[in-house]
Amino acid sequence: MPDQYAQSHDSGGRIRTPSIRWDESSDGPVLLLLDQTRLPAEEVELACKDVPTLVQAIRSLAVRGAPLLGIAGAYGVALAAGRGQDVAEAAEAIATARPTAVNLGRGVRRAHAAYRAAVEGGAGQAEGAAAALAEAKALHAEDAEASRRMAGHGLTLLDVLLPGGGHRLLTHCNTGALVSGGEGTALAVAIAAHRAGRLRRLWVDETRPLLQGARLTAYEAARHGMAYTLLTDNAAGSLFAAGEVDAVVIGADRIAADGSVANKVGSYPLAVLARYHHVPFIVVAPVTTVDLDTPDGASIEVEQRAGQEVTEFPVPQEAGEVGAPGSRSVAPVGTQAYNPAFDVTPPDLVTAIVTEYGAVSPVTADGLVELCDRSRQVTIS
Amino acid sequence: MPDQYAQSHDSGGRIRTPSIRWDESSDGPVLLLLDQTRLPAEEVELACKDVPTLVQAIRSLAVRGAPLLGIAGAYGVALAAGRGQDVAEAAEAIATARPTAVNLGRGVRRAHAAYRAAVEGGAGQAEGAAAALAEAKALHAEDAEASRRMAGHGLTLLDVLLPGGGHRLLTHCNTGALVSGGEGTALAVAIAAHRAGRLRRLWVDETRPLLQGARLTAYEAARHGMAYTLLTDNAAGSLFAAGEVDAVVIGADRIAADGSVANKVGSYPLAVLARYHHVPFIVVAPVTTVDLDTPDGASIEVEQRAGQEVTEFPVPQEAGEVGAPGSRSVAPVGTQAYNPAFDVTPPDLVTAIVTEYGAVSPVTADGLVELCDRSRQVTIS
Repeated sequence: MPDQYAQSHDSGGRIRTPSIRWDESSDGPVLLLLDQTRLPAEEVELACKDVPTLVQAIRSLAVRGAPLLGIAGAYGVALAAGRGQDVAEAAEAIATARPTAVNLGRGVRRAHAAYRAAVEGGAGQAEGAAAALAEAKALHAEDAEASRRMAGHGLTLLDVLLPGGGHRLLTHCNTGALVSGGEGTALAVAIAAHRAGRLRRLWVDETRPLLQGARLTAYEAARHGMAYTLLTDNAAGSLFAAGEVDAVVIGADRIAADGSVANKVGSYPLAVLARYHHVPFIVVAPVTTVDLDTPDGASIEVEQRAGQEVTEFPVPQEAGEVGAPGSRSVAPVGTQAYNPAFDVTPPDLVTAIVTEYGAVSPVTADGLVELCDRSRQVTIS
Repeated sequence: MPDQYAQSHDSGGRIRTPSIRWDESSDGPVLLLLDQTRLPAEEVELACKDVPTLVQAIRSLAVRGAPLLGIAGAYGVALAAGRGQDVAEAAEAIATARPTAVNLGRGVRRAHAAYRAAVEGGAGQAEGAAAALAEAKALHAEDAEASRRMAGHGLTLLDVLLPGGGHRLLTHCNTGALVSGGEGTALAVAIAAHRAGRLRRLWVDETRPLLQGARLTAYEAARHGMAYTLLTDNAAGSLFAAGEVDAVVIGADRIAADGSVANKVGSYPLAVLARYHHVPFIVVAPVTTVDLDTPDGASIEVEQRAGQEVTEFPVPQEAGEVGAPGSRSVAPVGTQAYNPAFDVTPPDLVTAIVTEYGAVSPVTADGLVELCDRSRQVTIS
């Protein structure tokens, strides 16, 4: 076990190692990421001392989840600046490491703008780096606050949609503290329901191919002492048919101007099942996930990932084992695979989008514009 | 590699080792099963010299698939009789090894009835055993013929529903030669389309938790030289949304009198997706899968399997590796899982049920009764 595992014990059920943290070591700044590919076997931090290491961590999903990618992107700019690397080039490399989550590019641009403003205002490299870091830290703190507010708005919405409490919530992928400066997006709503004594069951989709549900959401749910049950993505249909799902709560990687929601592959089938069974389908995401520059679902670029994620199965380490996680073939040699990382759910299948500025329901283009306006007013005021 | 692998080479793309075969060795009869848990890494036969070994093979899915389970059940009775074991007790043990596939109990009862008729007619143990074996072999041959006919009827139906050819078919689980005395049920239809030059693409769901799609259907498709692509079960929604699926073809483990179809978990979500996208959803199964004694979907007993199939991942052997397949944890210790082996699709979501006696469409109770009557008349004639 790494030292920080024991050092950072937290009796409140939270992840003991932060998903992301900044450190100033004797040989310069370091961005430390909780390596999510090693969970749940081990809490191991991955030290990024340069941008290529960070880019690789983003691509390999060592760091993942839309809000956290935004934070990582901002810190990445601060890292490049703090290490005297080419900041514009670094910003470009980080922002394009993965295409679908809008937050990544936004975090990068925000820190990069702070850096440029400082430098263009006559500041030196060190002051520019400090400005970028301050911006990253601000984004990190804002995300924690946004998470807290989303949880509150989400719980209020659940109580309106499902009077009487005892919610049985189905979630997909991982949307908790591991993707956030706070407790996350959709999972933060479930945690709030749990704390309020109103969560009867959290149904956790395992979320193939990379099993973020089994590896990460189950890990967070266990730490919080929630009543949770894991299932294959295939088994969700049986739960709906048996009337065992009161609502679906998921996150988002990008929300187009028309309300189309890109999220982890498998979200769209859940939306269709939810509609067929008259179950609310609720998307929880910070307002930074709304991208008014992307007009509709068809305009969202969906990342296609390597077929090996399907034809081979990731074999997580046992605790204490060293080296990178391995994989074993499950399909015949030469098998081609179709492996989109995300899918797109049209707005008419989404009951509500919950943000830190409140919920939009029904989901319409006008509703989203109004929401974005509200967020800007709050920021300006 | 086992010897029979090299010996049984077949240039026609078929599985080289038969899924099931009977052998009379010097120390008595043996039922040899192609161990499906070892595929695709190795074609290894499992020798059943007694009923407990067969029951364990059925439970562990070394032998699986509704039609093949019927054949295995019939041979199992012949094995018990041939080895001088208690035939009635053996029949009970085999028939109840798994609850959902109706064919298993039917195959058992058929061979058991042949055995009893012989013995009650004054035959000795050896003649009774011969009668049971003859009945098992007859069922085996009938299933091969049924497979051939289902393929023909299924292809005709596809050509009616999808004029113009170039079919892009989505299938789930494994329904080919590995489950059949012939080339299978749903996969036999896809193979027929392939041979006729009318298969544009076979989309293969990996089929969690046990990956029969990735391990077995991909293996059969590769051997036939079909244009196939593997996907996680989650990615099927994206294919439907992109208009890439012309029809879904699946098998069945039990069809209730009202037309409700129990099949591998994940079939029902596909049926809902197919309906939402106006895509035909076609069930292919021998008439023995229709169980008029089970009135409706709610009456079908769905097998609940161990949570470890979800919380741990089977690690298939690499070729040449010895010992049983292993597994690795993918979820935190103590995680509970919901793991139904099957789900139930109501008849209104099924476009057609294709049997060896033709197709029923729309799927109605009367249509199924008529079909079963037709099958009995043909048998009698």
